[in-house]
Amino acid sequence: MYKGSEIMTKIMLTGDRPTGKYHLGHYIGSLKNRVELQDEYESIFIVADLHMLTTKNNREDIIKSKENARQLVLGALACGIDPNKATFYLQSLIPEINEIYTLFQSLISVSRLERVPSLKEMAKDADIEMPYALLGYPILQAADILCVKADVVPVGKDNLSHVEITREIAMKFNKKYGEVFPIPKSVSSDECTNLPGIDGKGKMSKSAGNVINLTDTKEDLRKKVMKMPTDPNRIRPDIPGKIEDNLIFVYHDLFNDNKAEVKELKERYQKGTVGDVEVKERLINALDRFLTPFRERYNKYNDNEYLDKLIIEGSKKVRKIVQKTLEEMKEAMGFYS
Amino acid sequence: MYKGSEIMTKIMLTGDRPTGKYHLGHYIGSLKNRVELQDEYESIFIVADLHMLTTKNNREDIIKSKENARQLVLGALACGIDPNKATFYLQSLIPEINEIYTLFQSLISVSRLERVPSLKEMAKDADIEMPYALLGYPILQAADILCVKADVVPVGKDNLSHVEITREIAMKFNKKYGEVFPIPKSVSSDECTNLPGIDGKGKMSKSAGNVINLTDTKEDLRKKVMKMPTDPNRIRPDIPGKIEDNLIFVYHDLFNDNKAEVKELKERYQKGTVGDVEVKERLINALDRFLTPFRERYNKYNDNEYLDKLIIEGSKKVRKIVQKTLEEMKEAMGFYS
Repeated sequence: MYKGSEIMTKIMLTGDRPTGKYHLGHYIGSLKNRVELQDEYESIFIVADLHMLTTKNNREDIIKSKENARQLVLGALACGIDPNKATFYLQSLIPEINEIYTLFQSLISVSRLERVPSLKEMAKDADIEMPYALLGYPILQAADILCVKADVVPVGKDNLSHVEITREIAMKFNKKYGEVFPIPKSVSSDECTNLPGIDGKGKMSKSAGNVINLTDTKEDLRKKVMKMPTDPNRIRPDIPGKIEDNLIFVYHDLFNDNKAEVKELKERYQKGTVGDVEVKERLINALDRFLTPFRERYNKYNDNEYLDKLIIEGSKKVRKIVQKTLEEMKEAMGFYS
Repeated sequence: MYKGSEIMTKIMLTGDRPTGKYHLGHYIGSLKNRVELQDEYESIFIVADLHMLTTKNNREDIIKSKENARQLVLGALACGIDPNKATFYLQSLIPEINEIYTLFQSLISVSRLERVPSLKEMAKDADIEMPYALLGYPILQAADILCVKADVVPVGKDNLSHVEITREIAMKFNKKYGEVFPIPKSVSSDECTNLPGIDGKGKMSKSAGNVINLTDTKEDLRKKVMKMPTDPNRIRPDIPGKIEDNLIFVYHDLFNDNKAEVKELKERYQKGTVGDVEVKERLINALDRFLTPFRERYNKYNDNEYLDKLIIEGSKKVRKIVQKTLEEMKEAMGFYS
């Protein structure tokens, strides 16, 4: 794939930890980008259950991760990832990743890892003393990325410093033992951004209870949108309102495909000739149109047997690639000499 | 082996990194103890090549490790480890150890590992910035020990704090997921001590160039013993000498099986009625007698084909045990629920 791969499609690695379901914030933050890139790259999608252990390692978490893995794949399919284009794999079904992880561990220092800011935040969020596993998170991620010789990794801001460590490890390995790995690039689209939650108090997240689910019905959407904050100074519909930083218009801009309607609503809002309820009704309709294909794909693929097969077959396919990579690594390192 | 193992022989794990040959210092420091314990326990001997990577990960080191692995096994056999009693295995031939290592990593904190004094010394000795692999050394060691459910681990002082971490990991695992592991005990014999080198300047070590090899001939011994320091104040044989902290008598006490001769020499030395040369000649003879069975066993087993077979067959046998342990671990953790 790497050597002499000029005419082959480049490989993109994406994925997440199986700790819950995707919501609209995940779509805007990363999945939209991944869907757009899937025609350009050969797309490999990791369900990173070993990474989950870094902050959630109770038996209940691990048991739940099996269903969460299905939900993660289903969510990705609902967002538009094409199962005929992407290959899904479950990290714990590829034991060779652990060997690659071990072999990388001598290539990076503790102090380098301690300079990765997101790890300290993760430990703080989980309210735990930094476990050894968490400090090694970026090395295991390097194993995920390099085991399939990925060329590109779409990332949010949080993960940029992790991919930097992958690049360092790949470069050090190639320099020390010979060219085995491509040096992967991070890619992020301009729209790869944090979606504010429906309470307007921060980014959309399950723990904050401010999410729109990919499968929300029109009735769900109505309940949520009607509670969304607007311009707090506009106590009557005939008072001119602000559209900047107004959550309703942030959502209209992102999700309403009728741009003329959005333009008209903004003008009337600023003049004081439209009520909040009408603006919200139109957002409910827009979100409902937006989510219709998500719900359709969700229902189409919502079959445990199908999802399990997708994960198991994908893992088998990826395992063969990883086994080959590990052989090349050991050969280069001198294990077989 | 663990559950319902009351009537089964307890398991002892020993081993070393394949970084060089054993010398007489290793025998006194650890192998003597291991030989004595091999009748009491089922003995498993690890050739820890993955541990070598923590401080020596150049291609040349890795290539050399294959021959070093043979030399390690051969040295152990020369010391009296019985190939019909002990099982030898090469760590890198058991990929499941890496999985166990990964699964243990969330059970111990970075700050706990940073309190292990020997790791900092190892980094300093190797003149490297602490690599992530080295900080995790005691966790990988826990995987080595627990993967075969060892009951006892003979250790020198340096490794006592490592085995303590193994015990902590085993206890945490059992508490969190259910009883899978026995809590291994460290054992050390009174004689498990550091042998001073022939220059009297510190412990015997290859890098200090002050070793007696297990295969030294009488001629080699003569050259080395004749250079050993004695009582520096005794410039003529008729001056009474000190036997305390006198290197020649330290060696006589350890290696001369003729205790009457040692007693007589000590008395004459203290009275000033024996020359250094005679004391040394008698030590040469004693060391030669001592090493004769070592050389015989060395020559008997010095056959690469035999040694490779011992390592490969042993690794296959141990791998089956480790695979079973890993299955039990995953079951307990909830991976198969």
